Parts: sequence; structure tokens; C-alpha cells
Amino acid sequence: MNNRYFALSLATLCLSTSAIAASDDASPSQNAMRDTLAYEITEGLTTEVGQRQGGTEAEQRGRDWAVAKLNALGFANVREEKFDMPTWVRGEEKAWVISPFQNVMAAAALGNSGSTGAKPFEGEVIYFRTFDDLVAAPDARVAGKIVFVDHQMKRAQDGSGYGQFGRARFIGPNIAAKKGAAAILIRSIGTDSHRGPHTGNTNFEAGVKPIPAAAISNPDADNLTRQVMRAKTPVKVRLLLTPQNLGQQKSGNVIAEVPGSDPSLPPIVIACHLDSWDLGTGAIDDASGCGIITAAASYLQNRPAPKRTVRLLWAGAEEVGIWGGKDYAEKHKGTPHALAMESDFGADRVWRVDFKLPDSAKPLADRIASKLASLGITRGKDPASGGADVAAIIAAQDLAVIDLQQDGTRYFDLHHTPDDTLDKVDPEQMRQNVIAWTMVLEEVANYAGDLSMGPKS
Amino acid sequence: MNNRYFALSLATLCLSTSAIAASDDASPSQNAMRDTLAYEITEGLTTEVGQRQGGTEAEQRGRDWAVAKLNALGFANVREEKFDMPTWVRGEEKAWVISPFQNVMAAAALGNSGSTGAKPFEGEVIYFRTFDDLVAAPDARVAGKIVFVDHQMKRAQDGSGYGQFGRARFIGPNIAAKKGAAAILIRSIGTDSHRGPHTGNTNFEAGVKPIPAAAISNPDADNLTRQVMRAKTPVKVRLLLTPQNLGQQKSGNVIAEVPGSDPSLPPIVIACHLDSWDLGTGAIDDASGCGIITAAASYLQNRPAPKRTVRLLWAGAEEVGIWGGKDYAEKHKGTPHALAMESDFGADRVWRVDFKLPDSAKPLADRIASKLASLGITRGKDPASGGADVAAIIAAQDLAVIDLQQDGTRYFDLHHTPDDTLDKVDPEQMRQNVIAWTMVLEEVANYAGDLSMGPKS
Repeated sequence: MNNRYFALSLATLCLSTSAIAASDDASPSQNAMRDTLAYEITEGLTTEVGQRQGGTEAEQRGRDWAVAKLNALGFANVREEKFDMPTWVRGEEKAWVISPFQNVMAAAALGNSGSTGAKPFEGEVIYFRTFDDLVAAPDARVAGKIVFVDHQMKRAQDGSGYGQFGRARFIGPNIAAKKGAAAILIRSIGTDSHRGPHTGNTNFEAGVKPIPAAAISNPDADNLTRQVMRAKTPVKVRLLLTPQNLGQQKSGNVIAEVPGSDPSLPPIVIACHLDSWDLGTGAIDDASGCGIITAAASYLQNRPAPKRTVRLLWAGAEEVGIWGGKDYAEKHKGTPHALAMESDFGADRVWRVDFKLPDSAKPLADRIASKLASLGITRGKDPASGGADVAAIIAAQDLAVIDLQQDGTRYFDLHHTPDDTLDKVDPEQMRQNVIAWTMVLEEVANYAGDLSMGPKS
Repeated sequence: MNNRYFALSLATLCLSTSAIAASDDASPSQNAMRDTLAYEITEGLTTEVGQRQGGTEAEQRGRDWAVAKLNALGFANVREEKFDMPTWVRGEEKAWVISPFQNVMAAAALGNSGSTGAKPFEGEVIYFRTFDDLVAAPDARVAGKIVFVDHQMKRAQDGSGYGQFGRARFIGPNIAAKKGAAAILIRSIGTDSHRGPHTGNTNFEAGVKPIPAAAISNPDADNLTRQVMRAKTPVKVRLLLTPQNLGQQKSGNVIAEVPGSDPSLPPIVIACHLDSWDLGTGAIDDASGCGIITAAASYLQNRPAPKRTVRLLWAGAEEVGIWGGKDYAEKHKGTPHALAMESDFGADRVWRVDFKLPDSAKPLADRIASKLASLGITRGKDPASGGADVAAIIAAQDLAVIDLQQDGTRYFDLHHTPDDTLDKVDPEQMRQNVIAWTMVLEEVANYAGDLSMGPKS
């Protein structure tokens, strides 16, 4: 944890800016230094709504909460944009080792998992040390078995490893199903040592019948591995998963704006996602992101309007297929956008800034990087890529992007688990995010230069 | 965590003792410096048996495992001493906030909880900031309600706070029942921020009908408190708990010995408990304790026999009423004992030693304290009191006691939770325990002086 380090940085910053007035004379980023709104939003959403799984009634309560809050905060053009999406919901989920040892495992079905039916399935475990070992296995070894993919993601500040180790979840069930497996258990895609399994979506190809697919917690995966290694007979597991597909259900995006003074300039879109997985209350994934972008945008309202409109996108149904981001790109394809940003990696401090801007905007990037350095934020060398909810609009319009990269050291301890709750949000680190976001928005929303990446028509 | 500090201490110690031979020339405590047996026992018991709730078939598998292991290690007089005990087992357990907010809580029934029946109970929550507020509440405010006791235990190296805050669990349900409460939820008696609730026994007075009683996890207690504070209407909860009383079932103690060379000297009894709560695998509570005492005793076997017999007591059914400790005291009341010790506070390093010895044994205590100082262990000022499983024999015979106090800073993060699993055991800190125990046993088992506390007859 970087609390102590960050507290020092912030103290230094606050001293160096001196005399921060509560008055309207303060700049947006000076006001952001006293921010409590980001935490208030995160607290409200997690306490009053709780989990907000895409396509469910809980997500609708989340949208109602968001519309009321964004209106109360004085944003313009607050609205809900609904869409339909296929909806899968969790049922009973239990897993036991039954032979030659006996114990209960903590398991959670993966999104789009098949069902065992009400009668638990019993089968032999086939152990794979890595995802690649599963890929390489002949069908005959896998057919009829319960696949177990064991390898564990380790922590990294930039969250790298999720892509590589995450394949066991993203496509492992589809691969196992095609090889004839009866079911699949994966070690949670996570870096913690707690009994809360990490859920998340998986996808089966068209024509492949979904098999029961669940994550077991890291301590359970440790134990199952030891059991497989010392058992003299095949390890048998009993598995009960009864998820359901509810067909097409309503989801939606919530949109709000800080109107710009020059309507000829394309808007900036800043995103988070309103939906969450169902096991926790979606505090770090992604109520925090909505708190951060909304607090930052709110400080732009206290001043003469920025030149460009800043549009907030609280996206729906990200976790279960990025339906909100796709719907936004489709509905707004006729509106040229200038730049996209997203906050969807928890509430820990921003440690690096990445840019994807036209060469002509180098002075803008230099100015932003220089300001962010006061918060201890390093300028990265990689091009910015944005987040899941702005991916479609970025791709459709080849948008400029700025990424405020958050410290992900402990993000995958909590990601998609029952432990994603408000107590994991550090208000000091969250406030640093709001300050950084406000600094960036002050600059880009008042930048009148051309931000388009592509060749001019 | 003290790993770095401890590693330094151990390195210093190892250097200062120089040339540790693998040969039989090494003393017991020199051999203990290479110990891997304590971890091996903890790993075996948690992997091959798993949870071992008192009175259940799982505990019997634990006893079978223990008898085989203690025989394989060459201990003498390995045996099981069975007894009967009333047995309660967990059923379904679910808790939801249903109004004015909606969410699922992570809840675990307390041992001896009543049942809601198969149909969930719904009721209004009455909030108590502290246990004492519940005690002071008039019956009329409590009757028919779901009591919620909120205050949280904070971490302390010596584990203090458990007694005071634990009252909410030990006797809170009985008090609530006598006031007419329909059910009780308590904030987990624990110091963590995870979604695993802390179970544990509660007791109802004769004539008081047990009400449904459950612990909710700390993040759920945080959330419920916020909900109570901001709700404009009473907070309603739905609760499903279906535990069962199975009546008298078999439990038992497992006993083994390192025989002493002088049968006229009363034995030393060293204890741990074999049973565990059912939510985790009982790694720190108390497979570790069994590993530590057994490894230490094993090193006494490699030398000429100690003067006194050292008797190992792997007690049964501690968690659910200390039935094993009571049975041991009753069955062995005819045998005078010299001294009792217990390891039942996890696997983290010993940081303090406390003594309860006759004045005549002051040189013995001085010698032990001086040796333990090489491990960074402080000599305490409080009299030693022993552990739960030796409490009855200590009381019956007014025994001398030595306590090797373990660092409890993170113990109540894990105590009685699903998270009590092998990965929480730090092999380096565990080994320091084994070294300390071996140093103490070498001294006391070879001490021929009188250790009796009471007046001579």
C-alpha cells in the first residue's frame, strides 16, 4: 500500500499550492483537493443499491440512483439510454471433494456457465498445471472429466498477467467443452489468499453447448492441487451449479453532461461502468470509477464553462459483455467525439499517465504530464488505449485517448469477488485520482486545437 | 508481519550456535532449527482431512489420521480416548436486507443457534452500537425484533479484546432471547475486512429457547450500519438458518507419549486441539498447534530419554464446548501431573513467555527465559494460565504452567472463518515456535525438582 507515500506527496502538493480557498476563485483542480464527492458516490451506490448485475432489476435501481444523483449535482442532459441484452443469472453453487479426501470448496459459477441441473454431477478431476497444458491435451484424456486449470496470476502494479492467466476463464470452458469435458473448475483469476472465488464472464462459441464452469478460491485451488498430488486414486468432485438464462432483458447507459461554451468543438467522453458483478457490492469495480469521473467533472461546473462539452458515460452491462459501450458507440456514431477516457481499475492512486494524441497536441500532453508530476505521476511510454466501455467508440472514430493508470497491486485481490466492498476504498488515494482527473479535464476541455487522429478528409 | 524481523533473529541464532550437525550429536533444540515436521503435520491434516468439527465423522477421520501419524513418528502409548458429547451442525444459512435497501449478507450460524425453520424469518432490525447497549435495552424495544450488535474488535498483539467484544457472541444471543428477540445478528468477532463470517459457539441458559443467531462479516456489518443510519424506515432483514441438534455423538482425545526415564516423576502434559470449526480447514486453529507440540516432542525422542514423561494431548471437541479437555481431566484425575502447556493461538512467532511455577523453580524459569531470549522472546510479568484444553486439569490439580505466547496480531483475521487455511501458516514463524517449545521441553522434562504449586500434604 502506498498510503504513507501518497499522504506525503499530497501534503507536499497542498503546501506548494498554499491558500486553497473554499470560494469560487479556486480552480477546479484546487477544489478537487478537498474532494469528498467521489467517496460519497461510491458509498451511496454500494450502500443504497449494492450489487448491480447487468440486465437485472438491481442494475435498474442503480440507474435510477444515478439519474437522481447526477441531476442533484446539477449536470445537464441527464438521461437513460436503454437497450436489450441476453441475461444470465447465478443459481445454487456448491462444490465438494468427495474422494479420496472430503471437503467443501468455495466456488462461484462463471458468467454463461452451463447448469448441472438440480442433481449434482460427480466426476473425476483431470489436472492441468497451465492453460497451455489444457490446450495441448488430447480429447480422449479430457472427455467426461472435470477439468481443473491450476496456474495462478501474481500481482503486478500494472495488472499485467490478467490477459495471460485470464484465458483460463475467458476461453478455457469453451476449449474444455469442445474436448468433451463434463465440467471445468479454474483457479480464481486473482492474487489473494481468501475463500471468495473470482467470478467473471466466459464465452462459448456458437454451437458449443455450455458446460458447468466455476472458479474456486485460491486456498481451495491450493488444497485441490495438493490432493491431486498425494492421492493414490483419482480425485473425485461433486459439483452443483444451477444458473439460468433469462433471455433478453433491459439494461441501459446513464449519460450526463457539462455543456461546453463552443458547440463547434467535439465533446470529450469520460466513462465508468455502473453495473457490477453480483458477489460483492461493486465498490472498486466500478462504483469508484463513477465516483472519480463524476467528482472531477463536477468541479468543471463551478467555473465559466469549459470550451468543450464533457460527457459522462455511466455504462451498463460492462461485466457481462460490454453491452453498454457497444450501445453507446452505435447510438452516437453520428456525433464526432474528440477524446475518450475511462476509470475502471479500482480506487488506488494514479501512478502513470499514457497519451494517444495527434502530434500537433504534444504541447498539451507536455503540459498535462508536467501538472500530474506534482502528484507523483510518471509519464508512460506506451500509447493510451482507453477502457472497455469506450473501446467501441474509440475504434469507430479512432479517438484520441488519455489513460490515468491506477495502481493495480491489490486490484486483483478483490476483482469480481465477494470482497469488493466499500471498506477497500482508500479515501486518500481516491482523492488523488479526482485531483488528477480534474487537472486533465481542465486542460483537454479547454483545448480548442484539433484532436483527431486520422487523416483529414 | 514479522517475517523480516524474525528471519534476522533466526539467522543470528543459527550463527551463534554454529555447526548444527544433522547427526544424533545435535541437541533437541538444535534439531528443531531444521524443523519441517510441524508444517508437514499441519499440511497433512488440512489437506487429507480438512475441517474436523467436534462430534462429527470428520473429526473421527482426524483422530484416525492422528493415531497413524503419531505411531509413525515413534511415540509411545498412542491411543484414542472416546467420549460422548451433544452435537450441533450447521444447515442452510442465508441473510438478506430486504427493505428499504436490498442486498445479500455473508452470514454464518453460531454454534447452538436455533433454527428459523425452512421458511425464512423476516423482521425489523434493532441496532445496538455496543453489547452493553443491548444489555441495557428494555425488553419492549427488543421483543419480536432482529437484534444487531455492531461493535468491532480491533487487533492487538496479545489478542486482548476477544474477551470483551466476544461477549456479543458468547452470551449476546442468550440475553437477546430472554428479552424476547426473534433472532440476533452480530458483527463478526474478528479484525479483518473480508466476507467470511466468524462463527463460534454461543450458549443459551437452561430453559431459554435458542433463537436463530448468526455472525455477519465485517464488510456486511459496516454496510448494515450505514443502512440503519440512512434509512428513513425500519431496516428489514430476511434470515434463513437451519442448523440441527444431532444429540449425543462420539468424540475423543488422541494421546501419545515420550516416556520418561524416571517413572516416579509426574508427567508434563502438552496440548493442542484436533477439532476445528467447519468453515475453513482449521489450519491455524489448531492444526498448527498440534504440529508445533508434536514436532517439539519428537526431538526429545532422538536423545537419551528425558527424566519426565511428556504426554501429548490432541484434544477433541474444543471449539464446541471444550469436551476433550474436560474428559481428559476426569479420566486422568488419579494421575498427578507436573506441568501443563498448550499451543492454540495460530502459527505466528512466540513473542513472550509467562510462567506459573513454584518459587523453588525460579532458577528453572530464569534458565528458560535466558534461552528463549535468543529467539527474541520477552519474559512477561503475568502468571501463565495455560489453554482451554488443559484448563480443567490445571484447575483440578493446581498445576504449574508455562505459556509460550504467540503473536496474535493477525490471528483474529482468520479465527473461525472460511479463511483459516494452510496458506495462512508462515513456515518460518512456525519453526520459531518449534524451537521455543523444544527449548522449554528440554528444560522442564529434565527438571527433577518439585513443580507442585499447592501446600504439601
